[in-house]
Amino acid sequence: MTMLQTDSQGHLRHFLNFDDLSYQHLISIMDTAESFVGITKRSIKKVPLLRGHTIVNLFFEPSTRTLTTFELAAKRLSADVLNFHPKTSATKKGESLLDTLHTIEAMQCDMFIVRHADSGAAHFIAQHTHPDVSVINAGDGSHAHPTQAMLDMFTIRHHKTDFTKLSVAIVGDVLHSRVARSQIHALNLLQTGEIRVIAPKTLLSNHIKTLGVEVYHNLEQGIKDVDVIIMLRLQKERMQGALLPSENEYFQLYGLTANKLKLAKPDVIVMHPGPINRGVEMDSIVADGPHSVILQQVSYGIAIRMAVMSMILTPPQSQ
Amino acid sequence: MTMLQTDSQGHLRHFLNFDDLSYQHLISIMDTAESFVGITKRSIKKVPLLRGHTIVNLFFEPSTRTLTTFELAAKRLSADVLNFHPKTSATKKGESLLDTLHTIEAMQCDMFIVRHADSGAAHFIAQHTHPDVSVINAGDGSHAHPTQAMLDMFTIRHHKTDFTKLSVAIVGDVLHSRVARSQIHALNLLQTGEIRVIAPKTLLSNHIKTLGVEVYHNLEQGIKDVDVIIMLRLQKERMQGALLPSENEYFQLYGLTANKLKLAKPDVIVMHPGPINRGVEMDSIVADGPHSVILQQVSYGIAIRMAVMSMILTPPQSQ
Amino acid sequence: MTMLQTDSQGHLRHFLNFDDLSYQHLISIMDTAESFVGITKRSIKKVPLLRGHTIVNLFFEPSTRTLTTFELAAKRLSADVLNFHPKTSATKKGESLLDTLHTIEAMQCDMFIVRHADSGAAHFIAQHTHPDVSVINAGDGSHAHPTQAMLDMFTIRHHKTDFTKLSVAIVGDVLHSRVARSQIHALNLLQTGEIRVIAPKTLLSNHIKTLGVEVYHNLEQGIKDVDVIIMLRLQKERMQGALLPSENEYFQLYGLTANKLKLAKPDVIVMHPGPINRGVEMDSIVADGPHSVILQQVSYGIAIRMAVMSMILTPPQSQ
Repeated sequence: MTMLQTDSQGHLRHFLNFDDLSYQHLISIMDTAESFVGITKRSIKKVPLLRGHTIVNLFFEPSTRTLTTFELAAKRLSADVLNFHPKTSATKKGESLLDTLHTIEAMQCDMFIVRHADSGAAHFIAQHTHPDVSVINAGDGSHAHPTQAMLDMFTIRHHKTDFTKLSVAIVGDVLHSRVARSQIHALNLLQTGEIRVIAPKTLLSNHIKTLGVEVYHNLEQGIKDVDVIIMLRLQKERMQGALLPSENEYFQLYGLTANKLKLAKPDVIVMHPGPINRGVEMDSIVADGPHSVILQQVSYGIAIRMAVMSMILTPPQSQ
Repeated sequence: MTMLQTDSQGHLRHFLNFDDLSYQHLISIMDTAESFVGITKRSIKKVPLLRGHTIVNLFFEPSTRTLTTFELAAKRLSADVLNFHPKTSATKKGESLLDTLHTIEAMQCDMFIVRHADSGAAHFIAQHTHPDVSVINAGDGSHAHPTQAMLDMFTIRHHKTDFTKLSVAIVGDVLHSRVARSQIHALNLLQTGEIRVIAPKTLLSNHIKTLGVEVYHNLEQGIKDVDVIIMLRLQKERMQGALLPSENEYFQLYGLTANKLKLAKPDVIVMHPGPINRGVEMDSIVADGPHSVILQQVSYGIAIRMAVMSMILTPPQSQ
Repeated sequence: MTMLQTDSQGHLRHFLNFDDLSYQHLISIMDTAESFVGITKRSIKKVPLLRGHTIVNLFFEPSTRTLTTFELAAKRLSADVLNFHPKTSATKKGESLLDTLHTIEAMQCDMFIVRHADSGAAHFIAQHTHPDVSVINAGDGSHAHPTQAMLDMFTIRHHKTDFTKLSVAIVGDVLHSRVARSQIHALNLLQTGEIRVIAPKTLLSNHIKTLGVEVYHNLEQGIKDVDVIIMLRLQKERMQGALLPSENEYFQLYGLTANKLKLAKPDVIVMHPGPINRGVEMDSIVADGPHSVILQQVSYGIAIRMAVMSMILTPPQSQ
């Protein structure tokens, strides 16, 4: 499984997680995304970079919001986009995942954007695709969601210059969050000064400390003097199990309010992958307040996805 | 709410209803549409006017037919189109309408085409969008459906030159029809000679006469010597309430037959927004007969939507 | 119904079945497809041939896989594509098929790709469309699926030069298969040396011999010394009736294994329209083995559909 994501010259071939990527890869992705931020502000928000390429959204798990960002990123690179929802297709008739995969490949598609409820699905697909086909992980189980983490890093870089001097707090259901897992890996690769994780004990695994993070069970203590607060989305499904108290109680303990926010640095930024559960993860006054960069995250998400797609499909030697 | 739809120079910013529009706005829309009628007759039915613009169909209420006309209009202007059905997206997870809206906005979209079951929804969205984002109302509750009304006006203009000399009859469920409401406003703005409304008493509100129309409860009397007959679509859901007699009885009273049509002017045109309930609103011999311009309405619908989209997104100063 | 598919100069107007097509038509389609195979291997897999044309996928019966191949073929010709699923549209509200059809036509669409559960549906639509609109049959009931048959012929031609010297076996549910029906017609038009049909008696109709095929009920005898084996997909729905034994028993009798395959010519090719039921129609070792050309069929399917679309929409006189 070594170096699945990069070719022999270190160029990106797939984007699945952060396991075999370097500091330099992350910097390249962000630098490339920077050039696309400019494009999305022009009236013609489009470049012909991927004209004639076919990008397939292969969403085994529905997610309109994530699908939309990838579709838009692909269209702004002038690629042709196919949305393929395997649940409503041949897989119903008993066709295996690999047969579906090889069939779409045979239509000369260049890239799969894979969303799947099972951890490792994107990896599995990348291992079995044709060498000419690339895979981007758009969220697999509780494993990884690397483009989300990259847009978070990109948003942080726009507000805070030097990662080594930053203190970043991640708040919420870290245990089940592929976003948190990817964020921690990315923050580590970028040599972030301090990474804090704030969650109830039921929403943290024992091995969390091996990831190089400080663990807090108290929000006030955890966000004290931090530069960045990343709120995770609370999966309401968890509420029904024994893992979590009621929404109200959760908000009392881990919800971000304007008062609590004062404990952080004066120029703290507040992030959230969206959609927000207002009154659960944070107060509306925080979500819509001056520290919130939540909508910027969405904007930068397009640029990051354009960057990853174009770096993979038009590597330096072929440009 | 004054002048929400136009900017300080009077250029169209949104298209929600006819409240703050002038005679001249309607003429401009029709004149612009005229140039697109030519394009849709060429073998390459496409102009690069909106290349690189992103238009989002935000349909809270499903309507394949209306969606298709907007999608096609956008594609023929070379815009990128996203179809976003909020019911199947994050709104399910508790995200509010405005959060959905601001999220899509943050992806640098240029225009929302809004269809919603609630009157005023498009207006609400236009009031809360980013200043760079425009809204077209594709039907909101029983309030308005202005592009449908404009394509109707455009169809009339193609057959009858001078609105001031016309007698136009609107037949059917005027009470619940956003189409009728928009048609009456548009016909008034175009200084139509006479506007008649023909409906059972249960399908008319008391304030209808304040709109400057003549009310008839008898079809034969109402269509006598008119130049234009606009049949409304009968929402069969109404049948189950006490508002309407049976389909058969309705057809006997308000259905348009070849015989009744003879009461109108010899060159009368018959319109219907589609889809027709044959044998309820009119006989097939009328729907498919020489006076029917129903399919022309569909064709002109594309040109009208191209006109409104391009006028809003490429105002004179920026062209 | 004579010459519905071709114009007075013999150019293709619709593609519905093989009834009024000639040997030369099939050769032209394959020769045109050849030029598109090259395009799909380039990094920019796109030509501007159908720019500004609108192609509508009118799928009354869902089929993600077939829809995808037509959508991709259309996009690679630079056409605009609309996917229209009539079940979720106005037809629900009682609009008749023809009204739906004429409405979409009125939007100046150039081509319908029709998939329907009823035999003859595409034909019916072609007979009633506007003269400027063309129809491609993407599968109608148990009648025909001509683009699938053409991609099969094209795949055979890539491996075997001369159809007159070939022995081709079609194995499986011939009775219900529109694919088989179209394959037999196409193979006959191409003057194939020998066409064998191998199936249980319950899956063959009496008039099958009138199609110029040899009938076998035993797989070993039927595939002896053949050059091409076309396996049909087993519709599992048939299992529930009395027509078929269990899956296991079917596989014992009609499933293709590596051992049985040795009875055919050493350079035999094995085809299947997909998706495969592994362990029912054939062993995985055959499906993925050196004789299998199943994924090539998928690739060539794009080229064949591009060929048919472009031949119909850009006939020689208008190019």
